[in-house]
Amino acid sequence: MKNIVLASTSTLFGEEYLAYLGPVIKDLFHNIPEIIFIPFARPGGISYNDYTQKAATAFAAWDIKVTGLHTFRDPVEAIQQAKGFFTGGGNTFLLVKQLHEFDLVHALKTAVEGGTPYLGASAGSNIGGINMQTTNDMPIVYPPSFATMGLVPFNLNPHYLDPDPNSQHNGETRETRIKEFHSQNSIPVVGLREGSWIRVKGDVIKTEGSRDSRIFEQGKEPYELQPGTELAFPGTL
Amino acid sequence: MKNIVLASTSTLFGEEYLAYLGPVIKDLFHNIPEIIFIPFARPGGISYNDYTQKAATAFAAWDIKVTGLHTFRDPVEAIQQAKGFFTGGGNTFLLVKQLHEFDLVHALKTAVEGGTPYLGASAGSNIGGINMQTTNDMPIVYPPSFATMGLVPFNLNPHYLDPDPNSQHNGETRETRIKEFHSQNSIPVVGLREGSWIRVKGDVIKTEGSRDSRIFEQGKEPYELQPGTELAFPGTL
Repeated sequence: MKNIVLASTSTLFGEEYLAYLGPVIKDLFHNIPEIIFIPFARPGGISYNDYTQKAATAFAAWDIKVTGLHTFRDPVEAIQQAKGFFTGGGNTFLLVKQLHEFDLVHALKTAVEGGTPYLGASAGSNIGGINMQTTNDMPIVYPPSFATMGLVPFNLNPHYLDPDPNSQHNGETRETRIKEFHSQNSIPVVGLREGSWIRVKGDVIKTEGSRDSRIFEQGKEPYELQPGTELAFPGTL
Repeated sequence: MKNIVLASTSTLFGEEYLAYLGPVIKDLFHNIPEIIFIPFARPGGISYNDYTQKAATAFAAWDIKVTGLHTFRDPVEAIQQAKGFFTGGGNTFLLVKQLHEFDLVHALKTAVEGGTPYLGASAGSNIGGINMQTTNDMPIVYPPSFATMGLVPFNLNPHYLDPDPNSQHNGETRETRIKEFHSQNSIPVVGLREGSWIRVKGDVIKTEGSRDSRIFEQGKEPYELQPGTELAFPGTL
């Protein structure tokens, strides 16, 4: 049974790393003593070891041991034998390039679809979508493909930001960017505001957390979904 | 002699399209009756024809005729024979994908380095840099390469935004994103605030406009340059 959490962000303003996700992490990794951390997104250029240490410190509070995927000689085998996964945020282009170059996308998707619990935050949530083409990140490296795991039948836009009605800036709003995506693609997009996440249990996909999510479908006006609503896009895929 | 303007934005808040660039456009395209418009970035998914019409309307005020590059049977020949270029803003991934797929990057670079005047705005400025890897845009399509023209020996970040000291949002600031770029790349980056542009005349490259530009070099603290300052990055390239 699929058991997945895709969170908009790792950290809420003024809170500790992962703190607001404590209850859902305890549910997701119930009775799991050890998980693999995927540090490839490297926020701010942090090293794999330092980033893994940050995750390990947070998970120690829940008595879960964390090992970085980069420390295994055979990462595909490590993924196949893992009891759980957490992919941290950072730069989605870096993350996806590494996953493709080490040929890990298929192994990770197979493990998660086979029931190994998966937590993603930000970039780690983007790779749960069909492709990474609704990331907010800068293309600092060139991945061999933008395809990601497709654990859910849509794309995610983490850290979703509503337009600022007082802005005098001419850069595109997030909604404009997603509209541009839909000028070229038919995949639905879930805009996840900070504090919200996608919860997958088996075939049931819900939005959860403290805020409504904003849903974008090609050719429709965007609309809001309250936490606890089941997500389904009949006929769009 | 190279004769180039790379502007942060096409439009300032509350103003008409291209209005604030009027004086520099008249200088750039002095005595040039006709230019080619490159509409491939398609802001908001606008059609090539509609986008070209928008540019043509603005340039009519300066008695300059505008023809869309998409209307030529042989776009390489059109570029070789053009008297001037304007590449409009929109989505840099779309723009770069089209330029590479039509094999136009080299032709355009050759024409501009040979002296044909070039105006870029936003995405159209990004392609004047070494690569498009410091764009703010969403990767809505997958270009065959991120390489761009390298008309200047650095990259651009148009619509540069200073961090909001009051923000409670956990998405990366622009400065954090450019720092992540420099964890993987050594190319200097010029953050162009709205209202500013890069002016190239021959071998002299200056920042111009109404605001300071923010300069990012790998391994250095970012710093500010006032309008009118010559840009040089000795030893970095």
